[in-house]
Amino acid sequence: MPRTVVVVGGGVIGLSICWRAVAAGWSVTLVDPAPASGASYVAGGMLAPITEAWPGEESLLALGVESVRLWPSYAAELAAAAGVSAGLRKDGTIVVAADGSDRAELDRLASYLDSLGRRVEVLRARDVRVREPAIGGPVRGGLAMPDDYSVDNRQLLDALRRAISGVPHVAEAAADVRAGRVLLASGRTVEADVVVLAAGAWSGQICRRLSKVIRPVKGEILRLRARVGAVGPPRRTVRALVGGRHVYLVPRDDGGLVLGATQYEAGFDTTVTVGGVRDLLADAERVMPAIGEYELVECIAGLRPGSPDNRPLVGWLEPGLVVATGHHRNGILLAPVTADLVVATLAGADPPDSLRPDRHLSSVKGSQ
Amino acid sequence: MPRTVVVVGGGVIGLSICWRAVAAGWSVTLVDPAPASGASYVAGGMLAPITEAWPGEESLLALGVESVRLWPSYAAELAAAAGVSAGLRKDGTIVVAADGSDRAELDRLASYLDSLGRRVEVLRARDVRVREPAIGGPVRGGLAMPDDYSVDNRQLLDALRRAISGVPHVAEAAADVRAGRVLLASGRTVEADVVVLAAGAWSGQICRRLSKVIRPVKGEILRLRARVGAVGPPRRTVRALVGGRHVYLVPRDDGGLVLGATQYEAGFDTTVTVGGVRDLLADAERVMPAIGEYELVECIAGLRPGSPDNRPLVGWLEPGLVVATGHHRNGILLAPVTADLVVATLAGADPPDSLRPDRHLSSVKGSQ
Repeated sequence: MPRTVVVVGGGVIGLSICWRAVAAGWSVTLVDPAPASGASYVAGGMLAPITEAWPGEESLLALGVESVRLWPSYAAELAAAAGVSAGLRKDGTIVVAADGSDRAELDRLASYLDSLGRRVEVLRARDVRVREPAIGGPVRGGLAMPDDYSVDNRQLLDALRRAISGVPHVAEAAADVRAGRVLLASGRTVEADVVVLAAGAWSGQICRRLSKVIRPVKGEILRLRARVGAVGPPRRTVRALVGGRHVYLVPRDDGGLVLGATQYEAGFDTTVTVGGVRDLLADAERVMPAIGEYELVECIAGLRPGSPDNRPLVGWLEPGLVVATGHHRNGILLAPVTADLVVATLAGADPPDSLRPDRHLSSVKGSQ
Repeated sequence: MPRTVVVVGGGVIGLSICWRAVAAGWSVTLVDPAPASGASYVAGGMLAPITEAWPGEESLLALGVESVRLWPSYAAELAAAAGVSAGLRKDGTIVVAADGSDRAELDRLASYLDSLGRRVEVLRARDVRVREPAIGGPVRGGLAMPDDYSVDNRQLLDALRRAISGVPHVAEAAADVRAGRVLLASGRTVEADVVVLAAGAWSGQICRRLSKVIRPVKGEILRLRARVGAVGPPRRTVRALVGGRHVYLVPRDDGGLVLGATQYEAGFDTTVTVGGVRDLLADAERVMPAIGEYELVECIAGLRPGSPDNRPLVGWLEPGLVVATGHHRNGILLAPVTADLVVATLAGADPPDSLRPDRHLSSVKGSQ
C-alpha cells in the first residue's frame, strides 16, 4: 500500500483531501503557489443541492444530498482539528419568484422534487414575508428547502489551513503531473507514491489529458454589509428567480451578505465587469429592496472548473495519478464527499461510475 | 517678513501650496498622516467650471475660469519640477441630455452661459455621435465646452509629491491649529511663522472656529477600464443629465474611464453603497451603453469639504493663521488659483473679498 501522496491544488477540494488523507495515515505534501485564493475564496458557500436540482442531473443531486448529509460532521471535526469554526449555517434556504413566469418555473421545480421524494414546502408571498421580512417587492411566493445549508467559505478555508498546518507546502505552480511525479513551473519535481490533481479550473492546463475536459467558467460575486439603520440580511439563504435569471443572497454571521453569481464562458479572465455587477445588484434589489442601503464591500470574479456534464471527475486517471476536479458550481458543497471518496480510492475502493474520469477521456481521444 | 510656514493637509490644495510656497522662497513643512489619500485621490479630475456653471454662483464661475486659464502653465511647470506628467488633458467637455426635460435644462444652461458671454456650442444628437461615437442610446443632443479640461488626479498627486520631495513631512494628524503653531494628535507641536490650514473636510475638526462652516459631503466614484473588444472611452469628458440627475465620464490616457459622482450629507462616512454604485452605472450606461462590457476596477468614496455658499475660504483667519479650504467639488480645479492666492497672501496681498473666511465666521459667532 502506498504511503506518500502529493496534492496539487490548495482550494477547498485539495485542502479537504490533505486533511482527510493525513487523518487516514498518509504522508501528504501540498503544492500550490497561493492556497485558498481561487474559486473557493470567491465562492458564495451555498450548500443547496435541492434548490439547484435540475432534471437530467439526478446523480449530481444524489451526490450533493449525500455531501450535505456529511457536512455537519465534517464541519464539527474540522472545527475540532482547527480550533476555529468551519462556518456552517443550518438555517435552510428559500427560493422566491419575482414574477408569474418565475412562479411557474418554481412550480415545475417543486413537482420535479416531489417526484423524487425530496422535501420541499410551497410558500405563498405572505409566507415568504413572515419568514424573511427583508424580502419585499411584489414577490410571487416561493419554496422552502430546510435541508439546504450554507457555509462561510472564507471561514472554511481558514479552518482547513489551520487543520493542515503540519502538512509540508510547496508554494510553487505545477506545470505537469504524471504518475507519482509533479513537475513544477520552476523545473523542480516533487515525487510521491500517488499524485492527486485537485487544481480546479487549472487542472486542464496542468494535465494535458484533461485540456479539453476541464474549462474555466467565470463567475462574479459581490460582498455586501448592512449599514446602521438598514433592514438586516435574511436569516436563511435566499435564492431568487428574477425574470428567468437566478441570483442568490447568502447571509454571514458577521452581518455580511454575499450576492452571486454571474456565469460566463470567458477563458481565464477574472476581470469584474460593469454588466455583471449591474445585473446582480438589480436582480437582488428586485427581491430585497433594502440592499440599496448596504455597503458594497467587494466585487470579485473567480473561475469554476467546468466539466462537460457538470459532474466532477473523481478517481484514477492512471496508476499513481488520481484526479478530483470539475466541480463547477459545487466545489464547496461537494468537498466532504469528494475528500472521502479520494481517501477511499487511495485505500483501494472504487468511486461511483458516474464520476469516473475516463467517461470524458475516451470521447476526447475520439475527437483528436 | 515671515520666512517659515507649516501647511496642514496634503491633498491637492496643501501640496500645491507647499510647492508654490517653496518656489516663492518660504521654508515649508507639511503635516499630514497620509498625504494624497483623501478627496483629491478619490476625485474625477474634471476642470469644468463652464459645464458646471449655476445661476447665482457667478463669482465661483469666474474663479474657476481663472483657474482653468492657469492650468496649462501650472501643469507644465509642475511637470518640469517633478519630472513626470501632471496628467492634464485639453480635449474639452461635452454635456448631453438623456431626455426632453434634460434637453430643456441644457437649453437654459446655454442661454445663461450666453448671457455671461461664455463660449458654448449647441449640438444636435447627431453632432454628439459624430464627435463621440461611444455616446449612444436616444440622446437628445448636448452642448460642447471646448475650454473645459480634465486632469488625471492621481498622476497630478504623484507629480506634486515628487515636486515637493525636499519638503520636511510630519506624518501625523493635526489636532488643533493656532497662529504659528500646530498641535499634533500625539501631543507634539510644530511651529512656524505662519500656519496654513488646508485639511479639506477635516478642517472644521482641526480648527474649532470652522466647525460649523466646513462639512464633509460624501461622494462615490467608480473607475472603469475598457476590455478588449469593447467600444473605447470617449475622447472628451462627457457630462450627462439623465432624468434630472448628473453623471460624468472622464477618460484617462491609459484607457481608463472615471464615473462620478454621488453626493450625500452623511458625515464622515466613506462606505461605498449599493445604491450609489447602481445609480452611477445606470445613468452612465444610459448615455454610453458600451460600459456594460467594461471592467469595474474600483469603487471608492471620499469627503468633499463643503462650505455654506459652495465657495472656498482663502485668506487670513487671524495673524499667523491662513486657511485654504471649503473647495467642495472644485478642489482639483481650483488648486492653481488657490496656491497662487495663498502665496500672494503670505506676501501681503489681499485675496478677493468673495473668498474671505470671515464671511462665515461672524454668522457662526452670532448663532452661538
